[in-house]
Amino acid sequence: MRIDIITVLPELLESPFGASIVKRAIEKGLVEIHLHALRDYATNKYKQVDDYPYGGGAGMVLMAEPIDRCMEALTAERDYDEIIYLTPDGERLDQGIANELSLSGNLLLLCGHYKGVDQRIRDHWITREISIGDYVLSGGELGAAVLCDAIVRLLPGVLGNETSALTDTFQDNLLAPPIYTRPQEFKGMQVPEVLTSGHQARIDAWREEKALERTRERRPDLLENE
Amino acid sequence: MRIDIITVLPELLESPFGASIVKRAIEKGLVEIHLHALRDYATNKYKQVDDYPYGGGAGMVLMAEPIDRCMEALTAERDYDEIIYLTPDGERLDQGIANELSLSGNLLLLCGHYKGVDQRIRDHWITREISIGDYVLSGGELGAAVLCDAIVRLLPGVLGNETSALTDTFQDNLLAPPIYTRPQEFKGMQVPEVLTSGHQARIDAWREEKALERTRERRPDLLENE
Repeated sequence: MRIDIITVLPELLESPFGASIVKRAIEKGLVEIHLHALRDYATNKYKQVDDYPYGGGAGMVLMAEPIDRCMEALTAERDYDEIIYLTPDGERLDQGIANELSLSGNLLLLCGHYKGVDQRIRDHWITREISIGDYVLSGGELGAAVLCDAIVRLLPGVLGNETSALTDTFQDNLLAPPIYTRPQEFKGMQVPEVLTSGHQARIDAWREEKALERTRERRPDLLENE
Repeated sequence: MRIDIITVLPELLESPFGASIVKRAIEKGLVEIHLHALRDYATNKYKQVDDYPYGGGAGMVLMAEPIDRCMEALTAERDYDEIIYLTPDGERLDQGIANELSLSGNLLLLCGHYKGVDQRIRDHWITREISIGDYVLSGGELGAAVLCDAIVRLLPGVLGNETSALTDTFQDNLLAPPIYTRPQEFKGMQVPEVLTSGHQARIDAWREEKALERTRERRPDLLENE
């Protein structure tokens, strides 16, 4: 898989892609991530990439032309499965979308910044708009980092244990059950006895019951979608 | 405002806090962000912070004791408004929660990693569990970065223009209207005439209409909560 990211702040993304799972996946050759600095595609000598909004109001808007030049250059080199704009008014990212996108060959991500990008870029280039949640961030960079992490950890061979992602929260529309590790007693609190019983069938039943209980309590909406 | 973050991967958070809005807010003295490496609080000579789950299964669990030592040290120094665990089964972050948390004095954030933390830490220490969305990430670090960005940009004095955050998507339960900047024509697409009319009342009416239209189309659920 190859992911290209267009941003005004490539330096913001250095450490998320230089640590953890994503770093390991890059080192293993399972994913390539390329950052493209929007400023390198500016059309005037001041390297301008943003301007005031037509009609007035607060905040700056990313100009269409530098983004367009960058998109033209990238799409001339390869086809993309999706050209995604990270924006709070997009389709909300969930585990199903992450699963689906993890099957892509090439993805192109555009990070907004300030108030966002000129609408004509969205109309002309973008095939999918994704939001990581109902809140506003200072730019799309963290959204891109989140989307990449959610996708990359699903690629075969990235997680140490192949079954690890399959037992995650959301993969079966249930929240995960409580987990415990050593020591058996901590501040007077014991690990539930069943987990140290060695009786795998009882352990599995307990986990399923707790997962269902937690989901009913915290996220009954997940059960309704079954 | 002061934010403390406990993590096994402090290096992952370097560049998000070293760029953009959060960097500017730190430099202006409007927020302090302190990263605490969980490994520094390990109790054995191998600096171990994770272990296998009781009852078997894939993935590692962050041990209670190192987290507990770090929390004891931090809470001995100051009171925290909330001790937050970033987890996909928590309360879903939205703009209202970001607004509310931006009024805090001190926040303590705990990032899970691998399969998460020992349940007894959640039972004993955590006052609030927050999810940035319905998907699983390799750790809580990006969740913490997202939460900090969403909060910090709301602090008075952080955004250049004080009114900027108030016109964002979600602040009035509406998505933002389309935005445009120069040039007036791009690839044959024109800026809507009203935006260059200079007639502010008509511009405002157009924006409100478009915001409502986009919300009806993409997120009718936001209008039902009115």
